[in-house]
This record gives sequence, structure tokens and C-alpha cells, in this order.
Amino acid sequence: MSSQEQKTQAEAWFRTLRDQICVAFEAIEDALQGTAHAGLPAGRFERTPWTRDNDAGAERSRPILKGGGEISILRGRVFEKVGVNISTVYGTFSEEFRKQIPGAVETGTFWASGISLVAHMRNPHVPAVHMNTRHIVTGKSWFGGGADLTPMFFGTPQSEDDKRVFHDALRAACDRHGPDYYARFSKWCDEYFFLPHRNEARGVGGIFYDYLENDWDADFAFTRDVGMAFLDIYPRIVRAHMEKEWTPSDRAHQLARRGRYVEFNLLYDRGTTFGLKTGGNTEAILMSMPPEVTWA
Amino acid sequence: MSSQEQKTQAEAWFRTLRDQICVAFEAIEDALQGTAHAGLPAGRFERTPWTRDNDAGAERSRPILKGGGEISILRGRVFEKVGVNISTVYGTFSEEFRKQIPGAVETGTFWASGISLVAHMRNPHVPAVHMNTRHIVTGKSWFGGGADLTPMFFGTPQSEDDKRVFHDALRAACDRHGPDYYARFSKWCDEYFFLPHRNEARGVGGIFYDYLENDWDADFAFTRDVGMAFLDIYPRIVRAHMEKEWTPSDRAHQLARRGRYVEFNLLYDRGTTFGLKTGGNTEAILMSMPPEVTWA
Repeated sequence: MSSQEQKTQAEAWFRTLRDQICVAFEAIEDALQGTAHAGLPAGRFERTPWTRDNDAGAERSRPILKGGGEISILRGRVFEKVGVNISTVYGTFSEEFRKQIPGAVETGTFWASGISLVAHMRNPHVPAVHMNTRHIVTGKSWFGGGADLTPMFFGTPQSEDDKRVFHDALRAACDRHGPDYYARFSKWCDEYFFLPHRNEARGVGGIFYDYLENDWDADFAFTRDVGMAFLDIYPRIVRAHMEKEWTPSDRAHQLARRGRYVEFNLLYDRGTTFGLKTGGNTEAILMSMPPEVTWA
Repeated sequence: MSSQEQKTQAEAWFRTLRDQICVAFEAIEDALQGTAHAGLPAGRFERTPWTRDNDAGAERSRPILKGGGEISILRGRVFEKVGVNISTVYGTFSEEFRKQIPGAVETGTFWASGISLVAHMRNPHVPAVHMNTRHIVTGKSWFGGGADLTPMFFGTPQSEDDKRVFHDALRAACDRHGPDYYARFSKWCDEYFFLPHRNEARGVGGIFYDYLENDWDADFAFTRDVGMAFLDIYPRIVRAHMEKEWTPSDRAHQLARRGRYVEFNLLYDRGTTFGLKTGGNTEAILMSMPPEVTWA
């Protein structure tokens, strides 16, 4: 398959996965019964396309960046705010960034397509979640991504159950593609989603992988399976807890835990900090910010 | 004066200034009349001393850091959350950080004392504010600091008035010490407190200075004058607006603007990111986070 065909296939997959996730999440919005927010209307995604043609990169040490994407946001009664972005961008990195990107030293050109999702839930008993998969082409070509779960309460029987089923689903996807994938990628996830200044994990993990360039077809198949595993397991976790009662104190705890999410994303998350510092779409990147947050 | 005497004097000054600011702010809490929150009790500072003896720095590429400080926080009816920190720490930078700090390349030892203040106000018509001054000794010895004002509404007659009186006060302090100080330091402030990913200023500026090492006595006198200028002008701005009425929509705007404050501090602020990544006191550093924040 030509490189162009690979790009076209990957981009089409991220769009298909986005469509399936949006359908699944809207069905959850429809299904809610019997809690405080069941009286609200079921949420629907609003989709905003964007394009970028930043050819004035040199001035601010920014890369040349072209392409675009679609931001889909739902503010509902189960999902307080969930954003699902797809984008396909390409261009040339500034000198400053070439050294940081595999395969970019020589020409600095890149092409990147992916899907990125962050969900902040109304019910404090429903974990927040993040999922992202991407295909990057420079002088090299690789896939990366992962998914991680962030319960608001740690170390409870529920969070242990949620952790188990979430990891089981991702482990099954991993095991179909590489005997060491789950061990490597779940460890990578734990290391990546860690807040050193708090000495705290962001959540209960999942998987994180990057620079996967064994074999394009196999890597793409794995990346599709990660997306499908997420699409299967997260809605089940949401449905299991979305009708549980919660107290104002649970809500206060949730808002404070969201502060940790903000700290991680703005201080450490490579996608966020790199995106913001290289002229990416600010609204799309900061779609991950929680709708309401407190700090003590 | 010996270097030790200089350190002792600087540290004593930061404590004195802290004490005076706390008295002035508690007097404001007492003075509030006639608005929604006048029924709340007048806020009082709570003071928490801390010490640090992190001698295991090598493991995590962190510096050896010793010393301590005092966090003073008031959660009141005018000041929704204001933190005033003083600290004096010393130690040895890890190899990684020595190159980033003037005078630290050779031995890596440092001593740093300072005061840092961030105020988030209940009334959206009262600007938020930040003030920090510090004395640093490595192989070199210098003062740094500044103060900047962040109205929640930009470009209004009130924000223009507040900007003018705030800048006038700092200009007067600058003019007593160097004919070019105000021009240089207000420009530096505008450049520093800028969010490139939003293409937005954080607020209406003020002054920012660093690496000031002309003459110890003169630099210390200037640093004291910056503190005194702040102590004079910010309470006047607060008192001028703290009894104004506001609407739920004003409040919503304020909470969204605070998101920009979080973005700046976690993405760009050198003190915050450097402090968190070098093993500083997380609670003291993140005292600057607003109590309640929203993102669209």
C-alpha cells in the first residue's frame, strides 16, 4: 500500500471511530433514568469543523501547519462535557522542534492524523476517561495512542472493579497483537500519567503506546482494536454507575480531583503542551479542560 | 555588608512586608458593607509554616533543597482566596538545572528568599493581582520581582482607570531608582504575562524585573519600594470596587477568566513550573490557583 493510501485509510478510520463513539454516547444520554439530572434533555454532540493554514510559522518559531479537523462537544446530563476531536494536519516543523520528533531532523516535514477524546462526567461515581490514537508520518511512520481511566474516588471497591474491567478490555486488544504489548503499554501508561509534584497517579491507568512501527498493517489493526476496546468498555462502565446517587460532598470531591486533571494536562501532557507551543488549534487542544474545577 | 547580613536583611524585609499586607487585607475584610457577602464573617489569614529537607535530590534529578517558609491564606468575603507566601530555601541544583540559573554553573549552590502573593476576589469588578519579590544568591546575587493586575473585564473605563493608578504607583517607585526602570520593567511585564496560545495578555500589566544586580543596597531599596507601592495601591483599588453590585453573568465571566490565569501559571509561569519540577513545596506553589474555575 502506498504511503498516501495508508494515510487515507488511517484518517478514514479515525472518522469512523469518532462517529461510532458519538452514537454510543448519545445513546447513553437517552438512557439515563431516575437521577437528579434525568429531567434535563438528553445531550447531543455539536460539531465544529476547523481549518488551519499557518504559513507564517517562521516569525514565532512555529511550524508551518496546514489541514484541519472537527471538534465534537456534547454537554449533557450524563456527560457534563465530552469532547471528541479528529484532525489531520501536515506541514514543516521549525528547527527548534525537529530534534524532538523522530524522523523529522532532515526535512522537518510531518503529517499527523488522529482522534482524541476526554470525558468529564456529571456523576462523581462515573470515572472520567481519555482516549487518543494517532498516525504520524515524518521520515518515519508510526502509530501511538492509548486510553486511561480516572475515577474520582481511588482505592474503593468500585474503582478496583472499574480498573479491572477497563484493563481487561485493553489487555484483550493488546494480546491479539503482541504478547508483551499489555505489559509494556500498561506500564508506560502508569509512568506517563503521573503527577510528580503530587506524587500521585492521575488515575487507574490503562495503556499508552507510541512510536509503534513494526508493520504498518499490523500496527493499524492494533490501533483499530484499541479504539474498539474503548468503544465497548467505557460505555459499559458509564451505564453501570450513571444512576447512582451522589451527595454535595461527592461533587465537591469531584471538582477538586478535576484540578489534578488540569495540572497534569497543562504541566506534563506532551500533546497539550507541544500542541499549544507549536501553533495548534487552542480550542481543540483545551477541549480536555473540565467544565468546572476547584482548588483548595 | 557581608553576604550573610544581606541575606538576613532581605529575609526580614519579606517577612515585614508580609505582615503589613496581611494587616491591610484583614482591614479590608472588616470594612466591607452593603453587598451580597457582607453577611459573611470578615476573613482572617491562617498561617502554616513548613520546612523542607530534601537531601535525596539525586534520585529524581531534583536539587537538594532545604529551608522553609510560611503560607498565609485568607478565604474571606472580599478576598475569595488570597495567599501570601514567604520562604527562604537553599541547597544545590542538580546538573540539569545549573545551566539555566545565572551563577550556578560552577558549584550549583543557591539561596533564595522571597514573598509571593496572588489574590482572587469574590467581586468580579475587583481585579485579581499578583506580586512577588525575591533575592537570589548563587555565584551571583540579584533581586527580582514585580506586580501585575488582572481585571476580569478588559477595555472598560474601570479597567483603564485601574490600570492607570496601578501603573502610576509602580512608575513612581521605579522613577526613584532608575530613569529607565519603568519603561524596561513594564515592557518586560507585558511580554512575560502573555498567553501565546490565546494571543492574549493576562491582564493590564504592571512591572516585572529580574537579575537586578547593580548595587545591593540600591537594588534592595528598589525592591522594598516595589513592595510598598503594591501595599499602597492594591488596597485602594479593592476598596474602590468591592461594594459594587454584580450579576450571575458577571460571575460566570469571572470564573472563565480565571481559566486563563490557570493556563498561564501552569503552562508558562517560570516560578510555578520551575518550582514544581525542582521539588519545591507544591501547596505553596499552587496557592496561586483560583478557588473556582470554569472552562467553556
